[in-house]
Amino acid sequence: MRPTLQQAEDLTDAALKAGAALGKALSVAVVDEGGYTVLVKRADGARPITPQIAQAKAYSAAVMERPSAQLRNWADSNPVFFNQVAQMGHQPIVPTEGGIPVKLDGRLIGGLGISGGTPDEDERIARETLAGLGYELDFAAWGQPGTKAV
Amino acid sequence: MRPTLQQAEDLTDAALKAGAALGKALSVAVVDEGGYTVLVKRADGARPITPQIAQAKAYSAAVMERPSAQLRNWADSNPVFFNQVAQMGHQPIVPTEGGIPVKLDGRLIGGLGISGGTPDEDERIARETLAGLGYELDFAAWGQPGTKAV
Amino acid sequence: MRPTLQQAEDLTDAALKAGAALGKALSVAVVDEGGYTVLVKRADGARPITPQIAQAKAYSAAVMERPSAQLRNWADSNPVFFNQVAQMGHQPIVPTEGGIPVKLDGRLIGGLGISGGTPDEDERIARETLAGLGYELDFAAWGQPGTKAV
Amino acid sequence: MRPTLQQAEDLTDAALKAGAALGKALSVAVVDEGGYTVLVKRADGARPITPQIAQAKAYSAAVMERPSAQLRNWADSNPVFFNQVAQMGHQPIVPTEGGIPVKLDGRLIGGLGISGGTPDEDERIARETLAGLGYELDFAAWGQPGTKAV
Repeated sequence: MRPTLQQAEDLTDAALKAGAALGKALSVAVVDEGGYTVLVKRADGARPITPQIAQAKAYSAAVMERPSAQLRNWADSNPVFFNQVAQMGHQPIVPTEGGIPVKLDGRLIGGLGISGGTPDEDERIARETLAGLGYELDFAAWGQPGTKAV
Repeated sequence: MRPTLQQAEDLTDAALKAGAALGKALSVAVVDEGGYTVLVKRADGARPITPQIAQAKAYSAAVMERPSAQLRNWADSNPVFFNQVAQMGHQPIVPTEGGIPVKLDGRLIGGLGISGGTPDEDERIARETLAGLGYELDFAAWGQPGTKAV
Repeated sequence: MRPTLQQAEDLTDAALKAGAALGKALSVAVVDEGGYTVLVKRADGARPITPQIAQAKAYSAAVMERPSAQLRNWADSNPVFFNQVAQMGHQPIVPTEGGIPVKLDGRLIGGLGISGGTPDEDERIARETLAGLGYELDFAAWGQPGTKAV
Repeated sequence: MRPTLQQAEDLTDAALKAGAALGKALSVAVVDEGGYTVLVKRADGARPITPQIAQAKAYSAAVMERPSAQLRNWADSNPVFFNQVAQMGHQPIVPTEGGIPVKLDGRLIGGLGISGGTPDEDERIARETLAGLGYELDFAAWGQPGTKAV
């Protein structure tokens, strides 16, 4: 599954607009279920490396099937292990705010990544952008005993 | 030495069944004495990256000849050194729960790796799977002075 | 999209049986649409590196959306360019026989890779295995001007 | 120097439209003078790896300050050397059609990369897109003695 280019455009434009409202020049990335790029945009004024950070956040959310911030406990409790896992894909897997799976009708279809604000801004913009366009934001907690629920 | 495909099938099926009993969709890997893959299975619903993590755990147990969790002290006490070693093989060497050598009649013949549960679940399933099929679970402590005992 | 584990088991078992009928110990891999592993099996007697080759073939077919042998013209005509592209994913992209997309009801849901026979054997077993289980084998030629048809 | 996001949008939309007119689902990338991403878009139906190839072409054109196809002589005459150089940046440098510097008022401000068509289609679409939007397409030949002319 993958977001259509139009779905990705709508997500990206809404996120860039939310960033501009805060006076922040953002980079935004949308990837498909397997973490492959659909759309990456860097706003005028955003740092050169931010598109790659946004891609990594979107990738992490897609292949881990959770908000990237949920990976922080893992990275904190066993950083050496996490660092090895972080290099297993074709983008770095990053344990930080701003990467959220794209979930529609109960199915994960990709990931959204935001870079260029503070961690809290990136996270809030990602969540509000998805919610505003009708995507779902309910994800099971990470690493809980018992049944996994997407 | 290497586990036969049938031995690997029996290990993998038992581990997947134990995961399902906990409501967890796991990935399971079995490698030979040199860390080369014999069998990798991803249960329906398990995350895309979990087969690679399971392979890394099985690999670590095989080439380090110890449960992968025994590597945590090393990784914690000298993470820079461990990170270099972790990249010396053809799979990452990971210091975490869920990788156990496959030992039969006092000989190491490979490694078993589990990913997809909590660290404790992964470890317990790996050990119970091996014990349930007649494999041995006695390994010397890591980094003790004196004779190496497999 | 991804093949279920049962679909992958059926593909893998049929391919291993076809190899055994030729006296060849094969490795077989099934990956999902994004190239992530669902199942890898090495028959008793197959070389240690063959599971990785099978994974690379399955990966190549999935992310290139074509039989991996169709990549040979590209690799032959511009090997330096191909070698760079070959390293863009999380598995090597390989221009050789034995990797075929898994296509069902007109949709690509993954890739099948075979290693351990001659190139022709690997290719034939992959195709016959897919056809025998009801998968589709019609793929557009690579690099033709005009409309792309999956 | 970098293309504005609006300039990149105009380039990308024109290129995607030209691809659609040929029945080809393309990926298109625009990078800045240093090769950092401004915009990447994958049309519905384009292969998962094509956005990365488009980025590499745009990168190559930007940091080499020439159409990427001009690198083919170098790659053919000394492939071992070229392969080392190809890995010196943060994207692969690729010697193939479809990457053209973005040049305006005599200054290089970035690169445009196209992937998803035949090499000739990618090259033609890149050039026609740039020409149609008023960018310049005069570049000195590669590897000539004497004054460097952008």
